[in-house]
Amino acid sequence: MGSTRARIAIDAMGGDFAPSEIVVGALRAKEELDVEVLLVGDVPQIEAILNQHTSSHNIEIVPSEGTIEMHEEPLSGLKRKPKASINVAMDLVKQKRADAVVSAGHSGAAMAAALLRLGRLPGIDRPAIGAVFPTMIAGKPVLILDVGANVDSRPKFLDQFAVMGSVYSRYVLDVENPKVGLLNIGEEECKGNDLAIRAHQLLKENPSINFVGNAEGRDVLSGNFDVIVCDGFVGNVLLKFAEAVGEVMLNIVKEELPQGLNGMLGTAILKPNLKRIKQRMDHAEHGGGLLLGVAGICIISHGSSQAPSIFNAIRLAKEAVDHQVLERISSQYQKTAAQAADGE
Amino acid sequence: MGSTRARIAIDAMGGDFAPSEIVVGALRAKEELDVEVLLVGDVPQIEAILNQHTSSHNIEIVPSEGTIEMHEEPLSGLKRKPKASINVAMDLVKQKRADAVVSAGHSGAAMAAALLRLGRLPGIDRPAIGAVFPTMIAGKPVLILDVGANVDSRPKFLDQFAVMGSVYSRYVLDVENPKVGLLNIGEEECKGNDLAIRAHQLLKENPSINFVGNAEGRDVLSGNFDVIVCDGFVGNVLLKFAEAVGEVMLNIVKEELPQGLNGMLGTAILKPNLKRIKQRMDHAEHGGGLLLGVAGICIISHGSSQAPSIFNAIRLAKEAVDHQVLERISSQYQKTAAQAADGE
Repeated sequence: MGSTRARIAIDAMGGDFAPSEIVVGALRAKEELDVEVLLVGDVPQIEAILNQHTSSHNIEIVPSEGTIEMHEEPLSGLKRKPKASINVAMDLVKQKRADAVVSAGHSGAAMAAALLRLGRLPGIDRPAIGAVFPTMIAGKPVLILDVGANVDSRPKFLDQFAVMGSVYSRYVLDVENPKVGLLNIGEEECKGNDLAIRAHQLLKENPSINFVGNAEGRDVLSGNFDVIVCDGFVGNVLLKFAEAVGEVMLNIVKEELPQGLNGMLGTAILKPNLKRIKQRMDHAEHGGGLLLGVAGICIISHGSSQAPSIFNAIRLAKEAVDHQVLERISSQYQKTAAQAADGE
Repeated sequence: MGSTRARIAIDAMGGDFAPSEIVVGALRAKEELDVEVLLVGDVPQIEAILNQHTSSHNIEIVPSEGTIEMHEEPLSGLKRKPKASINVAMDLVKQKRADAVVSAGHSGAAMAAALLRLGRLPGIDRPAIGAVFPTMIAGKPVLILDVGANVDSRPKFLDQFAVMGSVYSRYVLDVENPKVGLLNIGEEECKGNDLAIRAHQLLKENPSINFVGNAEGRDVLSGNFDVIVCDGFVGNVLLKFAEAVGEVMLNIVKEELPQGLNGMLGTAILKPNLKRIKQRMDHAEHGGGLLLGVAGICIISHGSSQAPSIFNAIRLAKEAVDHQVLERISSQYQKTAAQAADGE
């Protein structure tokens, strides 16, 4: 395993800027990261883009036919187009020709294709999408899941998200004993909606995680939690709000800073500092969400992803593969099952 | 009505900085706004604070005994302490000695006291807490409700929130035909959890509001919506996250701006501009949430409120009273009931 390069299948046809930005991001990843990339899509189009950007490359292109359009209903679309790029990419993982998939296409379709073609990991009822947020403490991110794979979750789904998130936090984000929080509207365990109250009990009794209690909205970015679990409805609202709010804040800074007599001068002096601020606030750096719980690594990138986001998504996929996230989640559940059979 | 000053009952004993900061905020409101204030609480304590800050005042102090502590269960606390400050303040509205209540105490207790002592407006099943957020467009705020009064809402509650929010937006925030959005995880009407899908249908068919569709997390601060309705669980998470995120961003700016050779110089030059940025990002300016749907105006302020927040909360209460928000919500429902009886 150690010496084998992660092989990442890229859905070159998915996303607002496909295929060109996707191909450029993949090319950069191939050059700068220790990965193999397989580009799935329209061969002549992809070759033309590659030829524009490099004189020689040894990237494999896997042909596909069509994509699932944003307005299409995922399941029927996947059925009608068995050779759509996302289907072909998932099949590469199934056939063990690739270890992971990256797609910026229809996220519902990517999720459905992963479920249909790869299936769930044993012990997992529902996969979740995890997103890594920066916190107030530099270098101490928090993993939030689910940010949109499931709505109307049941308590046991959140319990499973906590296990998967803890594995990811421990082995990929390198947190020794990840602190797990439950997103809620109060600190006390009696607080919350029906789902939160019941999930709190399950999390509290789960010996395989380090549950530290409820996390309120204000705690998300505090750095006091390593993993926060929630239903995909609230997680998705939070993710999209967080992405937008950085932009709003930057706009306020841009509007107000150059005002007045000394504004232009001060702003000019501080140009490099402002650039660093922008980088720290910018969510585009993060590459995308990680679909956890299916039998394959899948990174679901934003539809608006351009080359740098795709590059980061590929890095995310590589890290999950290199750290054997799937194997570790599975073994966690085998351990739990064995303990249950052993004990009570 | 026009010539009558709004009379605001202030729970002087509620909040982390009670009674001193509450009293100081109320005193300033009495001096600067065209309002009467009634301070509810421990008379000797309140008088001592007033005497520290002014040589003469004509503020009425209404005696109360005790408060509901943060750890107390609201309903039993209110029952055991009938003369607690929040109970006495609500009674002042019931007796028509006051038009509104402002409290920074236990928010669950304030809500329960309002419901028990004042009751609901006709046509309203559940009151909601509304919070006004600034948006990307200066001077164009958005009202979000519910931000925490209800969890596990039913679709018709959200429909009622939309009606109440539209009245508030129109008459207090002066928006001609307020655009109402439903907080959701996608633009299409088939998207969302069970509550969102069913609420969407009700909102679409409600002739008394201007429903423009789903609002995703990224749309909250866009300025494209005047009112956004949601269940109190997600609304509360969003509110608390939004409050914290401003601080996180400001911290990043404060950390990065003075770095390097020119950092200190540039930051010194830009000091007044940075102050304006802080003001625009700072949520403390907003005073608190508005409890809509009970038969009295109630402003629920943060527990951490200091004098400026209390001042703003009193202004918020005054505006709601002056613009007859309750009367207008009631007449909206009478109109709807009459139309229903008239028509189909």
